[in-house]
Amino acid sequence: MDHACLSKGLARFLAEGINLGTTYLLDPEESHHLKNVLRLKEGEKIILLDLAGKEYLGKIVKLDKKGVLVKAQRLLRQEKPLKPELIFLLPLLKKDWLAFLVEKAVELGVSQVIPVITERTVVKPGANFTAKLEKRARQSLKQCRRLWPLKIQKPFSLSQAAKNIVADLKIFAYENEKERTLVDVLDVNSKVEKVVFTSGPEGGFSPKEAKILKECGFESIGLGSFILRAETAALYLMSVAHFTFFASKILKKRSY
Amino acid sequence: MDHACLSKGLARFLAEGINLGTTYLLDPEESHHLKNVLRLKEGEKIILLDLAGKEYLGKIVKLDKKGVLVKAQRLLRQEKPLKPELIFLLPLLKKDWLAFLVEKAVELGVSQVIPVITERTVVKPGANFTAKLEKRARQSLKQCRRLWPLKIQKPFSLSQAAKNIVADLKIFAYENEKERTLVDVLDVNSKVEKVVFTSGPEGGFSPKEAKILKECGFESIGLGSFILRAETAALYLMSVAHFTFFASKILKKRSY
Repeated sequence: MDHACLSKGLARFLAEGINLGTTYLLDPEESHHLKNVLRLKEGEKIILLDLAGKEYLGKIVKLDKKGVLVKAQRLLRQEKPLKPELIFLLPLLKKDWLAFLVEKAVELGVSQVIPVITERTVVKPGANFTAKLEKRARQSLKQCRRLWPLKIQKPFSLSQAAKNIVADLKIFAYENEKERTLVDVLDVNSKVEKVVFTSGPEGGFSPKEAKILKECGFESIGLGSFILRAETAALYLMSVAHFTFFASKILKKRSY
Repeated sequence: MDHACLSKGLARFLAEGINLGTTYLLDPEESHHLKNVLRLKEGEKIILLDLAGKEYLGKIVKLDKKGVLVKAQRLLRQEKPLKPELIFLLPLLKKDWLAFLVEKAVELGVSQVIPVITERTVVKPGANFTAKLEKRARQSLKQCRRLWPLKIQKPFSLSQAAKNIVADLKIFAYENEKERTLVDVLDVNSKVEKVVFTSGPEGGFSPKEAKILKECGFESIGLGSFILRAETAALYLMSVAHFTFFASKILKKRSY
């Protein structure tokens, strides 16, 4: 029986740091999902992710009030972290758009998201801001079958984040950039290890912010002839980055 | 004074077929927006779109119970339809995702959307299905400053749409395609006039549908190592199509 068959239809649970052959106590969120939402029973087979590139076939050892004990029985799949590392400085956005972008960042192979507060950012980080984004990222990870988690930082000011970040290539979408596009700055063949992207909030980056970004080594690019909404711009950058850096490389590594 | 200054901050209204120098009665939706939402007055300047590639500086001639009379006074901007023509067969999706994709299709330069019903499509087209999508597309057009409207067809069955469509290049995203990616089928230098894309609903295309699509000349491509949600897959295709066919060409045509 191949791995696809073994894992087909089985529910997936996060078990950070789990090792083959050992028992492991699921965290309260995962335990709740297993016991109360999916109502699985002792002895049933499940999939366990160690959040460090490994996916195991496992089983439920014990269900009790303390939580759910599971065991990893067989390695199903192993992945290296995606290269290059894609980092997105994402502006806080109205409605639930930042959480939506975090979900998409997981699906599209982004390594790290740094929420940024810009001059024209209207919304403020609410209670449990980072925890909520992390929850959305975990759900997305299980759904899309990614094995390495998206790192989510605490919110920074844009200028602070821009000054601190170290990368081989830094790109920002700017509506006043009329000459260069992504085509001019992305090169699939260049040996970059880390690429940073950012795009503005509703209303875009201010001229002062564009100046700071340029001083920090970010290259400005335009996104075409139409005005993209803030969430569209970020999604567009993620999609094109995925296409440029991953589409030709990683397809054949998918094991099911 | 340049065009950017002239039009800055002015509200935009759709006036299909309007000509320079003539008066024009706005339709009820646009009249309502002008009178009751924005509360503009006679004599005020506005932007008028003819929905055939022209944008005019105009003014409000008369406000009365019959509606709003406007006049196009000066051509501000003119655009040719985007080439190649990008056509998306988009599956009906849960929640409001199809309307969301229509909004993004406008922003990303798609020419035509054909809603399709597939084997695994769960939702049914509701009352005013096409009218609702058209309304969303019109709002998006005004916001993103596009001058040619997105055409939205009535819903078709996937197999019917696949059989009827004529294009130089036809592509469908398929989770069982493990070899070819977009990189293998998209060529920015090829002289294509019309490109069709499609991606599946929640649950993906069935093997039977994949067979039909292939028989109709669609090439299957995989989208990478992770499972993309239905709305992510469609957005990804739109973004990469925009990047491939437009990003290097159209930026410099933007006049403001």
